[in-house]
Amino acid sequence: MEFFNFFNRPKISLKSIQAIIFDFDGVFTDNKVIVDEDGKESVTCNRADGLGIRMFHAKGIPLLILSTETNPVVAQRAKKLVLDVIQGIEDKKAALLIYCQENRIDPQNIMYIGNDVNDYEVMGIVGYPVAPKDAHPKICRIAKLVLSKKGGQGVIKDLAEKLINS
Amino acid sequence: MEFFNFFNRPKISLKSIQAIIFDFDGVFTDNKVIVDEDGKESVTCNRADGLGIRMFHAKGIPLLILSTETNPVVAQRAKKLVLDVIQGIEDKKAALLIYCQENRIDPQNIMYIGNDVNDYEVMGIVGYPVAPKDAHPKICRIAKLVLSKKGGQGVIKDLAEKLINS
Amino acid sequence: MEFFNFFNRPKISLKSIQAIIFDFDGVFTDNKVIVDEDGKESVTCNRADGLGIRMFHAKGIPLLILSTETNPVVAQRAKKLVLDVIQGIEDKKAALLIYCQENRIDPQNIMYIGNDVNDYEVMGIVGYPVAPKDAHPKICRIAKLVLSKKGGQGVIKDLAEKLINS
Amino acid sequence: MEFFNFFNRPKISLKSIQAIIFDFDGVFTDNKVIVDEDGKESVTCNRADGLGIRMFHAKGIPLLILSTETNPVVAQRAKKLVLDVIQGIEDKKAALLIYCQENRIDPQNIMYIGNDVNDYEVMGIVGYPVAPKDAHPKICRIAKLVLSKKGGQGVIKDLAEKLINS
Repeated sequence: MEFFNFFNRPKISLKSIQAIIFDFDGVFTDNKVIVDEDGKESVTCNRADGLGIRMFHAKGIPLLILSTETNPVVAQRAKKLVLDVIQGIEDKKAALLIYCQENRIDPQNIMYIGNDVNDYEVMGIVGYPVAPKDAHPKICRIAKLVLSKKGGQGVIKDLAEKLINS
Repeated sequence: MEFFNFFNRPKISLKSIQAIIFDFDGVFTDNKVIVDEDGKESVTCNRADGLGIRMFHAKGIPLLILSTETNPVVAQRAKKLVLDVIQGIEDKKAALLIYCQENRIDPQNIMYIGNDVNDYEVMGIVGYPVAPKDAHPKICRIAKLVLSKKGGQGVIKDLAEKLINS
Repeated sequence: MEFFNFFNRPKISLKSIQAIIFDFDGVFTDNKVIVDEDGKESVTCNRADGLGIRMFHAKGIPLLILSTETNPVVAQRAKKLVLDVIQGIEDKKAALLIYCQENRIDPQNIMYIGNDVNDYEVMGIVGYPVAPKDAHPKICRIAKLVLSKKGGQGVIKDLAEKLINS
Repeated sequence: MEFFNFFNRPKISLKSIQAIIFDFDGVFTDNKVIVDEDGKESVTCNRADGLGIRMFHAKGIPLLILSTETNPVVAQRAKKLVLDVIQGIEDKKAALLIYCQENRIDPQNIMYIGNDVNDYEVMGIVGYPVAPKDAHPKICRIAKLVLSKKGGQGVIKDLAEKLINS
């Protein structure tokens, strides 16, 4: 059994997690977007997260990006990291419940990493809500785990090390 | 009535604000510009501001970007966020007065968010001058509200939370 | 007469400065370069410097960028800011001496802003060597003025305010 | 003989180093990658490292980039800086041993600069493992030298100054 502790927060065992779902902006990125003169967008990701995702893949844990916006940048990054992605859904909570039903997973066995108020509802129904260090205070308050990395600084790698190596 | 307080600065009621006008560079961005070999420009915005703008839209408050430069990047970001924009005006104060006349708004009911000395004059004639945390000292001194976020770190979201949620 | 003081460094009068010469990387920028898959380069500049340059232009002070590399990005930024630029010179000191001869300026009346060891020699022959806050320690030691801004954070605007407004 | 000291770590003589091998991401860069809507990647490098590389070239020390990923950005940056690069190798340790054999160098005379856990093994077999200031704690622990610069802030220039100037 793999455990870790974070201050007085409850211990989390990797065995009880059946899928990890990520918000994209503010988790894989610093929540910023580069906009050029043609309106083309770019975002800044972290190479460390590629290693983190490989660590989860090696453990066979399903990973998924859940993003409100339909955004080509998210699709491109997901493709590179070999990650599934659900995009263009207005209601994240509803989308997660459908995902759980289709994959026969109890939301109590879902870990969700989100950073802003639009993640608040969905984080309220999963068993393991997680926040990057610089998430909105409201999000940090409901998180069972607040990571030691800010969005875009290697949040997924940090999570992988906390869940897998300890 | 919605109020908030900031140190010993006067309380601001959302009801007395008939429009919020934003400078672009240094407010939506960190005042930086990425320049490539062809002279093409890009700027770095914050996803959080998209949420902030939706909060203001939900309250029905008119929002406007007022920018000295005629800049395709500003137009593109404004389009994405469904914001009106007035560009290519040398004299911001004159442009604001025309806007007020056309929309029959007293400048005393205008909130203006600016960051540098070229915003000084226009901020002197509105009722609610507001500055990002890292604005020029001259601007911070005349601001009725200095935000807790720097330009590009989610200034508009911060403002929305201060005006709407509290 | 316009003066300013910086710790115990000598006062600088704008009247004794006949031209201001800038290194580009590390002064207009944070010394970083964005490289894409095709080798195309971009750099990050600061909008504030545009205001600073206008302040110097209004005072009629000649401004010049002196860059070792022949770099399209430098040319593009200079064009936008209406600045002269000399590029592709291996020996900055020699280039500056030629510039002084052609314009009949005594190097003692030149202000030069540089950030790294390849500016060391040229900064030794001008009357007013200036360094951004994050310049190389060797450069800071020979500078008559160390600015309060780092490269790319508005070094030229900071200089303009120190020389013109005080 | 050129020496330097770093806290209580062993002194390093440039004479005993026959080649310096660099990991790319997190050494030349801040470990971040900019991704656009087409999946095109860019990274942020530091102009100071160009000076550092010239310092090593002047001393005639062979330099090499060793990168797991086959990445056009790495190739472009290497080309600009006139650096050799070996890309697309899964096993860095094996690649380094082949390099040593082909060039008849004892790994004990190799300096290797790496930042993350995938550099751990290869850093265990070289004589001079070096880490940027913000490398993974595991990497810092096995490094004979931890630099005073973070990845992308001029790591190579810092190393050149420590090895050559002191």
